[in-house]
Amino acid sequence: MGEFDLIARYFTRPPRRAALGVGDDCALLTPRPGMQLAVSCDMLVQGQHFFADTDPGRLGHKALAVNLSDLAACGARPLAFTLALALPRADDAWLAAFARGLMALADLHDCELIGGDTTQGPLNICITVFGEVAHGDALKRSGARPGDEIWVSGAPGQARLALGALRGEWPLPDAVMRIVRQRLEQPTPRVALGLALRGIATSAIDVSDGLLGDLAHILRASGAGATLEGDKATYLIASSAYTASDRACFDIRLLTHTLAQRRQCALAGGDDYELVFTAPAARHAAVLAAAARADTRVTRVGRVDAAPGLRVLDAHGQTLTERFASFDHFA
Amino acid sequence: MGEFDLIARYFTRPPRRAALGVGDDCALLTPRPGMQLAVSCDMLVQGQHFFADTDPGRLGHKALAVNLSDLAACGARPLAFTLALALPRADDAWLAAFARGLMALADLHDCELIGGDTTQGPLNICITVFGEVAHGDALKRSGARPGDEIWVSGAPGQARLALGALRGEWPLPDAVMRIVRQRLEQPTPRVALGLALRGIATSAIDVSDGLLGDLAHILRASGAGATLEGDKATYLIASSAYTASDRACFDIRLLTHTLAQRRQCALAGGDDYELVFTAPAARHAAVLAAAARADTRVTRVGRVDAAPGLRVLDAHGQTLTERFASFDHFA
Repeated sequence: MGEFDLIARYFTRPPRRAALGVGDDCALLTPRPGMQLAVSCDMLVQGQHFFADTDPGRLGHKALAVNLSDLAACGARPLAFTLALALPRADDAWLAAFARGLMALADLHDCELIGGDTTQGPLNICITVFGEVAHGDALKRSGARPGDEIWVSGAPGQARLALGALRGEWPLPDAVMRIVRQRLEQPTPRVALGLALRGIATSAIDVSDGLLGDLAHILRASGAGATLEGDKATYLIASSAYTASDRACFDIRLLTHTLAQRRQCALAGGDDYELVFTAPAARHAAVLAAAARADTRVTRVGRVDAAPGLRVLDAHGQTLTERFASFDHFA
Repeated sequence: MGEFDLIARYFTRPPRRAALGVGDDCALLTPRPGMQLAVSCDMLVQGQHFFADTDPGRLGHKALAVNLSDLAACGARPLAFTLALALPRADDAWLAAFARGLMALADLHDCELIGGDTTQGPLNICITVFGEVAHGDALKRSGARPGDEIWVSGAPGQARLALGALRGEWPLPDAVMRIVRQRLEQPTPRVALGLALRGIATSAIDVSDGLLGDLAHILRASGAGATLEGDKATYLIASSAYTASDRACFDIRLLTHTLAQRRQCALAGGDDYELVFTAPAARHAAVLAAAARADTRVTRVGRVDAAPGLRVLDAHGQTLTERFASFDHFA
């Protein structure tokens, strides 16, 4: 199978929204009047972002999910994406499964594959995604204000819990592993929540590198500090029924690892692609209503302070002195 | 140096045209009314697209150049790009040189770096570029019509000539190598020519995989055939003064390799990033005027036929029966 056959077989469909899709030098997008284009780009590398034996269908899903998650964090509606793929070889079964996983999520969000590149090389998946958001509606990192409540969607830390089990850092019962492995390998981008939070949230970011590290990006961009109820966030890992449609549920007693490990997962574990966001305390009910519209569980886990710095509290309101390192590819 | 320091040091500048640049979940672009957004994406992999010892400054240039070349082939004006970079390690000297080469070409085309991703992994550079073009003005592959003249910019084959010398396939005198190596490692994207050809050319593509292979894409998309003066294209390799501003010049007698090798370079060599385009014969003078405005040498090398197939002629008008394989990553 040659390069162009490969593209034709797995990655070419008739253009829908795009004026020109896969198969010319450029794709053409026609932005709607009054709309800004939100652009984000993520690269996934074998050994860094996924194991060599990761199911290709789940990998296709995840490669797009992490990009859709960035649109979600901006409150942008997905439009289209480009896919660049370096492959060690053209493996039909692998490609078919990868394309199936990728396209299923793309279809779910009506997000059109408009172009890309394929080449031989160590496995590398680079997606650039495009969304639209009305002028002035985009959620940014810089809008958090003292007094705002800090919220998080879902249960950050479950992906790290799965990763630790896969790495042999701790054991996990099969019933728990089935659930959290799904979080690691097939995360749900919170697109509906991001859209619902426009006009309500003052800032947002997605949790890719860890809750504390990503919240710190908001605080730095906003020139503020925060107090985080660290153990409230931590207990989310084992809470039940995160979304009405997705009744992932397990009992905390099934988790045999320590509180310190659970905190490490919840506060510093990456790869969950939940949203952390801030909103005025006066909009508490509006946040809950938006989350209900988006069918996504959200939990208030802290408040923005005028004083700089990020204080993390345990279940008794005492400041945690442990250090939590977020993920950094070059640290 | 951590991941975020690396981004801040080498790849962050204040946003200019973009409403929001590097450092949020998404960048925001504000398209101008009546404009379409042209999008293209290319991935460069070590060992496939460049040698491990390639000068990082030239590599930075080339990584953006191959993308700008796609905008050129569409007649789109460069606006912005994202950069995803997998690096084996954060090497300060390498990154500084890479960023310098990349940003110098970006500045030359007023093309803004608006976001991206950095990760650890085998060296891989993925750029997605955005340009604008007025509704209906984009040059596509599908517009060639029987009777159109086929044109090519510059001298396709010089990059392949350099590659062959670097691989030890043939010797090249130093004076020639200096010139053609520049074509391979620091190609000039024909952005000005693409812009000048709007409203004149009926189709266009950039020569990335080889003149015959890329012309075949035009013919397939246009449902036409062509007759190419193969040896006229071949002799361009050794012709002088391709552009008024770029007086690369060498004598054909310096080329010690055979006519068959020169044909292989000119007709099937990739990586030149020249434009192949078609235009009605009646617009011959308009093409030459556009090329002069763009300060780029163009040469008429064939005509589009109603009969399918691509006939390649030698200097005596006889059909060449040699086979020329264009580059295919998975063939």
